[in-house]
Amino acid sequence: MRLEEAVRAIRPPDPDAMRAARDRQATLTKPPGSLGALEELSVRLAGLAGRCPPPIPSRPVVAVFAGDHGVHAQGVSPWPQAVTAQMVANFAAGGAVVNAFARQVGAAVIVVDVGVATPLPAETRVGAEAGPVRELRVRPGTRDLSETPALTREEAVAAIEIGIATAVELADAGHDLLLTGDMGIANTTPAAALIAAFTGASPAEVTGRGTGIDDATLQHKTQIVQRALDRHRPDPSDAIGVLACVGGLEHAALAGFILGAAARRIPVLLDGVIAGSASLAAATLAPPSVAAMVAGHLSAEPGAAVVLDRLGLRPLLNLGLRLGEGTGAALAAPIVASAARVLHDVATFESARVSQGAADGSPAEVEAGR
Amino acid sequence: MRLEEAVRAIRPPDPDAMRAARDRQATLTKPPGSLGALEELSVRLAGLAGRCPPPIPSRPVVAVFAGDHGVHAQGVSPWPQAVTAQMVANFAAGGAVVNAFARQVGAAVIVVDVGVATPLPAETRVGAEAGPVRELRVRPGTRDLSETPALTREEAVAAIEIGIATAVELADAGHDLLLTGDMGIANTTPAAALIAAFTGASPAEVTGRGTGIDDATLQHKTQIVQRALDRHRPDPSDAIGVLACVGGLEHAALAGFILGAAARRIPVLLDGVIAGSASLAAATLAPPSVAAMVAGHLSAEPGAAVVLDRLGLRPLLNLGLRLGEGTGAALAAPIVASAARVLHDVATFESARVSQGAADGSPAEVEAGR
Repeated sequence: MRLEEAVRAIRPPDPDAMRAARDRQATLTKPPGSLGALEELSVRLAGLAGRCPPPIPSRPVVAVFAGDHGVHAQGVSPWPQAVTAQMVANFAAGGAVVNAFARQVGAAVIVVDVGVATPLPAETRVGAEAGPVRELRVRPGTRDLSETPALTREEAVAAIEIGIATAVELADAGHDLLLTGDMGIANTTPAAALIAAFTGASPAEVTGRGTGIDDATLQHKTQIVQRALDRHRPDPSDAIGVLACVGGLEHAALAGFILGAAARRIPVLLDGVIAGSASLAAATLAPPSVAAMVAGHLSAEPGAAVVLDRLGLRPLLNLGLRLGEGTGAALAAPIVASAARVLHDVATFESARVSQGAADGSPAEVEAGR
Repeated sequence: MRLEEAVRAIRPPDPDAMRAARDRQATLTKPPGSLGALEELSVRLAGLAGRCPPPIPSRPVVAVFAGDHGVHAQGVSPWPQAVTAQMVANFAAGGAVVNAFARQVGAAVIVVDVGVATPLPAETRVGAEAGPVRELRVRPGTRDLSETPALTREEAVAAIEIGIATAVELADAGHDLLLTGDMGIANTTPAAALIAAFTGASPAEVTGRGTGIDDATLQHKTQIVQRALDRHRPDPSDAIGVLACVGGLEHAALAGFILGAAARRIPVLLDGVIAGSASLAAATLAPPSVAAMVAGHLSAEPGAAVVLDRLGLRPLLNLGLRLGEGTGAALAAPIVASAARVLHDVATFESARVSQGAADGSPAEVEAGR
């Protein structure tokens, strides 16, 4: 599916299904509103699916998009760039944290090399739990965004369309909940630049410690983000231009992955700040795609909160995670399924012969004998 | 197991296992600290189990303790008291929200009638998904705590020992993660009184809207809690006395359930404010029992935050839930398993041949070519 086709396919949520979900919530054997954020989530899932009850996701899959970053040469990360390729091998072998969490929640994992800079370790494709790595490098890492555009517009679109194709293929294979994953040493630097470019937030507000950098490196990293914005002055209404100037290949692929999920009306569970930066690109390209997005968690990375605030999304978890890979999305997957399941499984006051409380919240006068 | 025996069996966590878990976290293929609260949870689970890695919980069970409350006569709830018995039937039939969430996360549900006031509906034991209701009424509801002690000391101990026996039986049957559940119309009133009595917080700080009451009823409910405390002046160091004066049968049973889990060194996942009030009783009876407690979520009920602050527990979820039943605990169960699983499944830097970042968080100088 081409980008234009995906954007055209994305429709607003179905108001009738949302109304039906709200009405159904009010009939179930629980006090009104007592499921907090999960009630609104169930309504959103119904609106996205276009029916009530919406399907209960039973075949989640994490797609981990991996890429490298020319800006690594500026010393923004304590980790060598070769770790990206090494971790791709770790994902394929099932040894990373995202694999452990996916196993726990019954999610599949696939790995897409959309732009790793170094060769994958030779053993990567042997005995791979997550299946063979999809080797779809648009280019071996981006250019240094602090000096030149990270990508051409054509490269950015190519990465977006890899993401769309991945989402569509997974949906066609029966996966019904798509989880964003990412790997890329230094990729919080382009994420911060993207968030600043799309929202107008300052680099200081959105630049964080990533995998864990010291104060001096954080200050340097923030200056790099500022320098990139000053150099490129990206137009926030031109999402492809923003991704090309200050983005990354995995960021662009994730934007496409979100659009592909939205085009197929399947919920996409966002992990942390990398997915967050990509979601701003997706929302710019196709505003109704926000209806397909569920925020898995609030990353410790400061840009994550800026993204969720802008998109009006409430994170399901807030555990101080800052790992990426899709870990926060995987942990949240059973909560999404539980929210949908309420509309299927829970008895109504009528069917269970349970008495209802006074609608106005005043005490039960007859029973209380007052 | 009698109360004294359970208290004697509860030992502090194992410092060697905790150290081993911390050391192991540092070797795994992820930046140090990047799993946030889950790293500390994995360390606590190791300390409780007395070994590293701790077992991955695979057979969770929710025990829903149900009881009624004499203080209902004071008009503190909009729901008729008969709803407690009706909901017990709903749990047994598998139609409540806790059943739906337990189904989603693979948890069993059992229901214990520790003091319902009215007869259970005739169909309660027919076709019961959750198995037959355990009919262990200590008495048919408590007395009105605003006028007289809710229970005798003997009744409070009997309920505690039902909770202990339930936990021990479930542990013996192979359940490895115990989840607290509760049902009892008006039971947030004794929960507020218990939390105020144990912590010294004011009734206004800990009394909430429960299932959803209006402003006038909230003010009245707060006055009822104040009146109970003024009348009984419970000694916070005498947990049985506090439970007897201002508690409930399900609150006392849950305190015992927590103690039973701690005695067997099995984690107990706390639901909301009812479990929270019970956990203060358990912590008073056996301070090292806190090591077995995991806070499933932060209930919207204001006393819940006071409890977690007192016990130094961080909730895994914060979704605005205020339903009870064990719903918040059930949603959190996969997160507890995931935290333990990290210590089993995740590759080390050495085993996965992944390079490590600079320990001091400064940039990778060689790779970056600076």
